[in-house]
Amino acid sequence: MSKIKDVIVEYYRIPLPELVSDAKHGVHTHFEVPIVRVLTDDGREGVGYTYTGGFGGRSISKLIQVELRNVLLGKDPSCVEDLWEQMQTGIHYVGHGGLASFAISAVDIALWDLRAKKAQEPLWKLLGGHNKEVKAYGGAIDLAFPLEKLLKHHQNYLDMGLTAIKIKLGQPKLSEDIKRVKALREMIGPDVEFMVDANMGWTIEQSVRAARELLKYNIIFLEEPIDPNNYEGHKIIAERSGMAIAAGENLRTPKEFFQMMTQGKIDFPQPDASNIGGITGFMKVAHVAQMLDLKVSTHGMQELHVSLLAALPNAGYLEVHSFPIDQYTKRPLVINKETHRAVAPDTIGTGVEFDFAKLAPYKTDF
Amino acid sequence: MSKIKDVIVEYYRIPLPELVSDAKHGVHTHFEVPIVRVLTDDGREGVGYTYTGGFGGRSISKLIQVELRNVLLGKDPSCVEDLWEQMQTGIHYVGHGGLASFAISAVDIALWDLRAKKAQEPLWKLLGGHNKEVKAYGGAIDLAFPLEKLLKHHQNYLDMGLTAIKIKLGQPKLSEDIKRVKALREMIGPDVEFMVDANMGWTIEQSVRAARELLKYNIIFLEEPIDPNNYEGHKIIAERSGMAIAAGENLRTPKEFFQMMTQGKIDFPQPDASNIGGITGFMKVAHVAQMLDLKVSTHGMQELHVSLLAALPNAGYLEVHSFPIDQYTKRPLVINKETHRAVAPDTIGTGVEFDFAKLAPYKTDF
Repeated sequence: MSKIKDVIVEYYRIPLPELVSDAKHGVHTHFEVPIVRVLTDDGREGVGYTYTGGFGGRSISKLIQVELRNVLLGKDPSCVEDLWEQMQTGIHYVGHGGLASFAISAVDIALWDLRAKKAQEPLWKLLGGHNKEVKAYGGAIDLAFPLEKLLKHHQNYLDMGLTAIKIKLGQPKLSEDIKRVKALREMIGPDVEFMVDANMGWTIEQSVRAARELLKYNIIFLEEPIDPNNYEGHKIIAERSGMAIAAGENLRTPKEFFQMMTQGKIDFPQPDASNIGGITGFMKVAHVAQMLDLKVSTHGMQELHVSLLAALPNAGYLEVHSFPIDQYTKRPLVINKETHRAVAPDTIGTGVEFDFAKLAPYKTDF
Repeated sequence: MSKIKDVIVEYYRIPLPELVSDAKHGVHTHFEVPIVRVLTDDGREGVGYTYTGGFGGRSISKLIQVELRNVLLGKDPSCVEDLWEQMQTGIHYVGHGGLASFAISAVDIALWDLRAKKAQEPLWKLLGGHNKEVKAYGGAIDLAFPLEKLLKHHQNYLDMGLTAIKIKLGQPKLSEDIKRVKALREMIGPDVEFMVDANMGWTIEQSVRAARELLKYNIIFLEEPIDPNNYEGHKIIAERSGMAIAAGENLRTPKEFFQMMTQGKIDFPQPDASNIGGITGFMKVAHVAQMLDLKVSTHGMQELHVSLLAALPNAGYLEVHSFPIDQYTKRPLVINKETHRAVAPDTIGTGVEFDFAKLAPYKTDF
């Protein structure tokens, strides 16, 4: 049996190529990427990570460096599910969700990297191996883009080979949102799939009113119309409008997803392995979704999620997120221009190998 | 208008007088107390704090030092409810519950200290002023105490003037738990109020079976029988057994309490201002409880909670917790030996003034 010898954290704070904003979080200037290495006493290394929209990364790094490291030292790294439980229990009072889930996620991904490397398998096969190519859409953070820039930005996604896009809603007036949706639908034509995201900016009543208008433009789903903690509210919006609802990036435990799926009756669960408890947490959500005949879509970290969706028989949409973490890896996301799908890497391990030379300027004390 | 000039955090890691344990968290060796000072540009100072069972305090301190400080600098400290919202929104992606609630709580308490000092009122009056004396019980962390020590420990509470006690359950066999309950009931007689706490150690089935036995000993409430995120489970236990259920120390937002009270139908909500969003979060929970005709009890930090309960028309029980934070203040909790009630301080401000000389040996880098 090998043992965990050390857990090392580095914290990167990376400026965005341009300032972007949405309805809830305001202007984003940076994203943060805490990177974790789990080292074993037989000389192996697993690498994991999480990310944020610019806040809290130092606290996450500190939680890993002190608390999770104490839980893990000397343990058998093979027993991933049990270590996940030990991490959850070990910091339960300040954990069971919230910020702690980011820390546990980063470590869990590193443990899966070790597991996949030991098995000599790429992650997408180790987790299931359903279909190496997955549907993907361009997820813009474009609430503040003037119309011309908005159209140009989404044309870029089509040029990349994508055939699905998502825009942010939440302009001061609903009519302005609808005007942008209309212009974009005219540009992309009837066949490109089109999603929208309100980033928790609305009440139930506003959501229903907006959804009614949006349905005229053949919108696949309305994402996060309201506070994600109001599970039942999601069901009410869907029932009153007929619009399909997506949510999940702000849920932090598989049990929260369970409630959102069973009480909230959402159509598109969107777990994010960086904050739902890593790959272990993500797979729990995927299995519950399957019981409910729901496909699983993702939020953020496309360079990892492509392998998770490729594993699953109930894969939904991969979001190609606007935080370009994949640009700091040795294999930025690959789109097959013939199938218009994203392709999971065959690299042994998670398939996410950071380019530390490129990251180096952004390494920050925490 | 005065403005917030600085937000300063100190982190104290304090050893417990003896090691204590419960069913979920294992052995406690320390408690942590991050203390926050909010300074204004007109020379005023508000002091707030939070605490943990020994894990996560450094991350909490870091979140305040970097993220919450950035939210608060330059703002008007009088607008407490709005600053609470700004803190929640400013770190929403890593927040809305979990560890972030501890950080927001500490700052919120400091803002209330400023507010009460400016009003020249003691907190218990500023928040309502219902009854300066409140019911209180001794909350032991005694799962590992042998029977003789258990009895002696609870005799101490009676000697302090208390007429209500709580023990931990979760022995390997239910019969052992019941044996301890029986011995304690015989010692304290029929009139002392008696509560029990399973610290999330059981399933629903185990809880119902235990509750049926516990009812024979006139137990006031069974606290946290199961995972606090399983709201409906609490209702099932109460319906099947007739036992009153208490919970709340592991809920981190007022919305979680709303769900626990409306779906879980608990009888004794137990918010803790150190982790529910400070005094602002606590009062929201208290107001929802009042709409449901529920009394509000508390968990931990008796030196502050005595003033919150004293304010409320629907005050329940004050827990005299075994983390002795009050011993590091200038006014450890006062029990009126004639009324057997805890007495709220008339000190201007929150009434919690730390003894920094006594704390000094435990100050720790974070």
